[in-house]
Amino acid sequence: MLIVMKKGSTGEDLARVVRSVEDLGFRAHVIPGAERTAVGVTGNAAPLDPGVFEGLPGVAQAIPVSRPWKLAGREFRPEDTRIRLGGRTIGGGDLFVIAGPCAVENEEQVLSVAQLVRAAGADALRGGAYKPRSSPHSFQGLGREGLEMLARAREATGLPIVTEAVDEDSLDLVERHADVIQIGARNMQNYALLRRAGRAKKPIFLKRGMSATLEDLLLSAEYVMNEGNSDVILCERGIRTFSRHSRYTLDLSIVPALRDASHLPVFVDPSHATGLRDRVAPMARAAVAAGADGVMLEVHTAPEHALSDGRQALLPAAFRELIVQLRELAVIVARRTEAVR
Amino acid sequence: MLIVMKKGSTGEDLARVVRSVEDLGFRAHVIPGAERTAVGVTGNAAPLDPGVFEGLPGVAQAIPVSRPWKLAGREFRPEDTRIRLGGRTIGGGDLFVIAGPCAVENEEQVLSVAQLVRAAGADALRGGAYKPRSSPHSFQGLGREGLEMLARAREATGLPIVTEAVDEDSLDLVERHADVIQIGARNMQNYALLRRAGRAKKPIFLKRGMSATLEDLLLSAEYVMNEGNSDVILCERGIRTFSRHSRYTLDLSIVPALRDASHLPVFVDPSHATGLRDRVAPMARAAVAAGADGVMLEVHTAPEHALSDGRQALLPAAFRELIVQLRELAVIVARRTEAVR
Amino acid sequence: MLIVMKKGSTGEDLARVVRSVEDLGFRAHVIPGAERTAVGVTGNAAPLDPGVFEGLPGVAQAIPVSRPWKLAGREFRPEDTRIRLGGRTIGGGDLFVIAGPCAVENEEQVLSVAQLVRAAGADALRGGAYKPRSSPHSFQGLGREGLEMLARAREATGLPIVTEAVDEDSLDLVERHADVIQIGARNMQNYALLRRAGRAKKPIFLKRGMSATLEDLLLSAEYVMNEGNSDVILCERGIRTFSRHSRYTLDLSIVPALRDASHLPVFVDPSHATGLRDRVAPMARAAVAAGADGVMLEVHTAPEHALSDGRQALLPAAFRELIVQLRELAVIVARRTEAVR
Amino acid sequence: MLIVMKKGSTGEDLARVVRSVEDLGFRAHVIPGAERTAVGVTGNAAPLDPGVFEGLPGVAQAIPVSRPWKLAGREFRPEDTRIRLGGRTIGGGDLFVIAGPCAVENEEQVLSVAQLVRAAGADALRGGAYKPRSSPHSFQGLGREGLEMLARAREATGLPIVTEAVDEDSLDLVERHADVIQIGARNMQNYALLRRAGRAKKPIFLKRGMSATLEDLLLSAEYVMNEGNSDVILCERGIRTFSRHSRYTLDLSIVPALRDASHLPVFVDPSHATGLRDRVAPMARAAVAAGADGVMLEVHTAPEHALSDGRQALLPAAFRELIVQLRELAVIVARRTEAVR
Repeated sequence: MLIVMKKGSTGEDLARVVRSVEDLGFRAHVIPGAERTAVGVTGNAAPLDPGVFEGLPGVAQAIPVSRPWKLAGREFRPEDTRIRLGGRTIGGGDLFVIAGPCAVENEEQVLSVAQLVRAAGADALRGGAYKPRSSPHSFQGLGREGLEMLARAREATGLPIVTEAVDEDSLDLVERHADVIQIGARNMQNYALLRRAGRAKKPIFLKRGMSATLEDLLLSAEYVMNEGNSDVILCERGIRTFSRHSRYTLDLSIVPALRDASHLPVFVDPSHATGLRDRVAPMARAAVAAGADGVMLEVHTAPEHALSDGRQALLPAAFRELIVQLRELAVIVARRTEAVR
Repeated sequence: MLIVMKKGSTGEDLARVVRSVEDLGFRAHVIPGAERTAVGVTGNAAPLDPGVFEGLPGVAQAIPVSRPWKLAGREFRPEDTRIRLGGRTIGGGDLFVIAGPCAVENEEQVLSVAQLVRAAGADALRGGAYKPRSSPHSFQGLGREGLEMLARAREATGLPIVTEAVDEDSLDLVERHADVIQIGARNMQNYALLRRAGRAKKPIFLKRGMSATLEDLLLSAEYVMNEGNSDVILCERGIRTFSRHSRYTLDLSIVPALRDASHLPVFVDPSHATGLRDRVAPMARAAVAAGADGVMLEVHTAPEHALSDGRQALLPAAFRELIVQLRELAVIVARRTEAVR
Repeated sequence: MLIVMKKGSTGEDLARVVRSVEDLGFRAHVIPGAERTAVGVTGNAAPLDPGVFEGLPGVAQAIPVSRPWKLAGREFRPEDTRIRLGGRTIGGGDLFVIAGPCAVENEEQVLSVAQLVRAAGADALRGGAYKPRSSPHSFQGLGREGLEMLARAREATGLPIVTEAVDEDSLDLVERHADVIQIGARNMQNYALLRRAGRAKKPIFLKRGMSATLEDLLLSAEYVMNEGNSDVILCERGIRTFSRHSRYTLDLSIVPALRDASHLPVFVDPSHATGLRDRVAPMARAAVAAGADGVMLEVHTAPEHALSDGRQALLPAAFRELIVQLRELAVIVARRTEAVR
Repeated sequence: MLIVMKKGSTGEDLARVVRSVEDLGFRAHVIPGAERTAVGVTGNAAPLDPGVFEGLPGVAQAIPVSRPWKLAGREFRPEDTRIRLGGRTIGGGDLFVIAGPCAVENEEQVLSVAQLVRAAGADALRGGAYKPRSSPHSFQGLGREGLEMLARAREATGLPIVTEAVDEDSLDLVERHADVIQIGARNMQNYALLRRAGRAKKPIFLKRGMSATLEDLLLSAEYVMNEGNSDVILCERGIRTFSRHSRYTLDLSIVPALRDASHLPVFVDPSHATGLRDRVAPMARAAVAAGADGVMLEVHTAPEHALSDGRQALLPAAFRELIVQLRELAVIVARRTEAVR
């Protein structure tokens, strides 16, 4: 249920609505909007009667919401969610580029890549300190030490840091050291971790699981938002299909579908999806052309020595050329008049 | 085996190579190139000994080819295949746009859409006279009558015609009336039809089957080319996956993969893939950004009345806006320096 | 629309119903049943009014059928379709085993395998004379000569022959020489071939395409039945998924789903699905346990020399052991009381 | 690396081998066998030189293992892992049946289902106290209270309890109250949880993720085993594919593939895979026929009132009939002579 307040409604009206929702044993989520405030109701197993709320002072309309996600849905919040980060805005129409190495390997590597991507025009630095690896025998990341290297790279370059948390312990540390907390594809349905992320004070970068539907992804965002953290960024990174020419199949048509169903920003990670350096640039361009709010790219100054996934990292010159193209494409795409929704 | 001739080799040298291939019981395919001529050898079950040919006059090199496709492969022909059509070139770097209704319904409809897409800047007209439908109880197309309507639309607008053949009989008629013969996704492994297409004198527009791998698609092109028709255009139109937000999952990363593996032009059909009008424009832009040589789009002047697939046809205004954007994007993409191969 | 006749209705009543259907421009399919006759109506684009037929003498009920398939559906024909072949019955509750080599290679091979499978207790002989191969450069089968070898193996052993037709020409020959005409997975949506099969006087063994849904498969059966041939056998042979431990993913849960939706017999081919000899026996047992009416198995007396797919052919001893187990399992499964529908 | 000890080797020899492995900075896993002891080495990034160990007293052979999983692999331990539970043996050749409600709802429900499944011949009781649900707004289970109800049902019936842990906190409680700790499909790559499970003193029932390959599943088992818990049971529960007639596609061919690659017991859960009561019995039979060591089934005495997934729970009479059939099928399957490996 979404309760939309009238334009001239007062703070008292709003408080009364929230109280009446809570008196029924449900949860009220106040959603401020440019034009009018709304209150999302969650926790009700069965549909509610709109009449209960439409009689209250200041209420314009009570709309039953049928989709299983609520807080993440456009019905709840028609305007795009915007997230300020490092002086720029995610979801505000400008393309946001996150770039960096797959894994943090040592201080020198992080710093050199950070300076490279900053000079090329990236908006944030990525780099894994905790690596969720299929095998327990593979390199699992530098952990806290890696986080500290990332923090020093931020000091040196001014770039905000996006890095992954793989469990509740690492999330505590990532929240302390980084600017955006990434939840990886393998943890997209790790609900304990999502709930913990929902209590964090930093934005969450949520990657789509490799067999997650659009609905699954939005419901995982819902887990985060239901705990009070509404700054969630969704990221397509490829799904598992029979197709073998690419590591995963990048499902770019989810970009317009997500923008239709949700107000949350949508990113694409073409590096992990394709797994091949030569395919990253075309798919990054395609992501922007499909309307993505941003891309996450792997860049390496010496990919032949990278400890993990080196074959997919862009080389410096290719990255510099690509970022220029992406910003040019974004300008053309922004001119579209077709309804996003 | 690919036999590459020396730059200064003579026609006599070439004839001698061809004869020696045929004397061994194999097939020789002469592949003229801008710089030098090559001869593809097919029909050999086991690998051949390069020494047999390298001793002949005029032969620069004999290269064993390990990939299962030969004629369709870059090894056989490093330069992009270019196909002239209606005064323009497919595969030559310029974006080629094929547009029109899903099915031919009546003369007035075809003509009005043809004039619309021509005015908007399309390069060719599409329209189905034969519709392969999952159910025998669905509308199967107007057949020969539909072909004649398309031919009259060509006379009126000058646009070349691309239309589907569904069996050997319809292929005879399509070859006579149209400019490009489309083989649909369901017939991608109908080898009798592919062989017949290989004997046609018109280019073949070959759609990827909904569960075909890159290898399957190139081997189907190989069936056509093996009969002597080297003008094959490949088209991605979506694959079957678990993902349900889109009718099929448009696998755009096959575009750079195909351009890497093959010299044939690569198109994308976002209309059938998405099945929803609002998703067509973003995915068409993404296709161009991924490096496609062209797109095939469904356009309808009155989609609410369309006999088949009306929900996916672009409306006139949206099409006009889209084609302008696509051509702008193509210019940016063309500036890329990353190796296509 | 399905028109069910009353128990005591006359032939004249039936003829009148058929005439009135045809007068409306539709097609009437008389479906004799053990208890009562029904008339299926096809060719109507929009739903029909039951009242039109319920007023006619001898008509018990006119039932609108909403599923897209009609002739293949349980609504049209509640009793299982039974097909007599070589003195046995397919679909009648007894397990029917079709076995033989992947491809016909020479007379001696066919005969020796035929005698082997007959001695082991198989009900029919399979063997490909026409092989639809992904590559035009692969062995394509012995053609007519292979059919004649199969026919001689039938004379020698009494086993009926199941073999594939790949186009209309080969279908003519297969219809003449064989007892059951197989349509392969790649041709499951080759509608011209399906229509030709519908005019054949022999049963059709229709394999599921590797990305076909249950609905697609039944609609392809519908193409055959719509031309008058109601003896269609459905066969699951594996679908394309991300899973790589098996060549295709055998989707056994389609067996009870098909038996629920359709009256046609359902077979399973575990040989092509798994592609590995060691996996064939477990999956054949699983197919029978899931309720399949029969299985199609590849057997070879010298699989190390087989020209195609030798790695998946069962060796003689394994086949003899398997067929005994399958018949024992079938007895247990037949005792089930859960509703098939 | 797998170091195989000689038959007459001493405990001292073994200790020396372990020490020399640890001195190199790697981990040694002693694997006792019926005939001879082996030592698995993990933690080495690069292949080791067999000569280093083959020179030590008591060492028969040092075998480099190329597959990415080690502890879970057949190479490491040729004999099947057997796990004693409630007086019966999992993996020892007898079929092991786990049955019960999807979710624990109340004491009466658990007890009545427990008595029902015990009377019918089940070997263990399942029931979810913690339910990982896609939506935060869905019923999440009774938690600790549910565990206590399960424990009381064990007291009343003697059946061991299998129940899911969804995070580290619930795993602590599940370890205390239950006999087998289930890790669900969504947590199959939650490595923190897997490591915690590896430190538990109870067997782990590990469900395959819905897009996990065979390799992914075995590597997740490896995470558990690498912490010292070698009692891992693998469970197929359906994968995500395009196929829509079933909730997930039950990939039964992974059963023989897993038994070939690993020594761990393999179960199948047909209830969640199919999602439809009528499909559970055929697929349970198929699982046993494919060689599964056991099945996990949902049973409900009043499924029309079940709080979650009621449509897939077997009714009492159907369950009683099914379990008899499954045990009969298992006897036939056990007689097979084809090599499991």
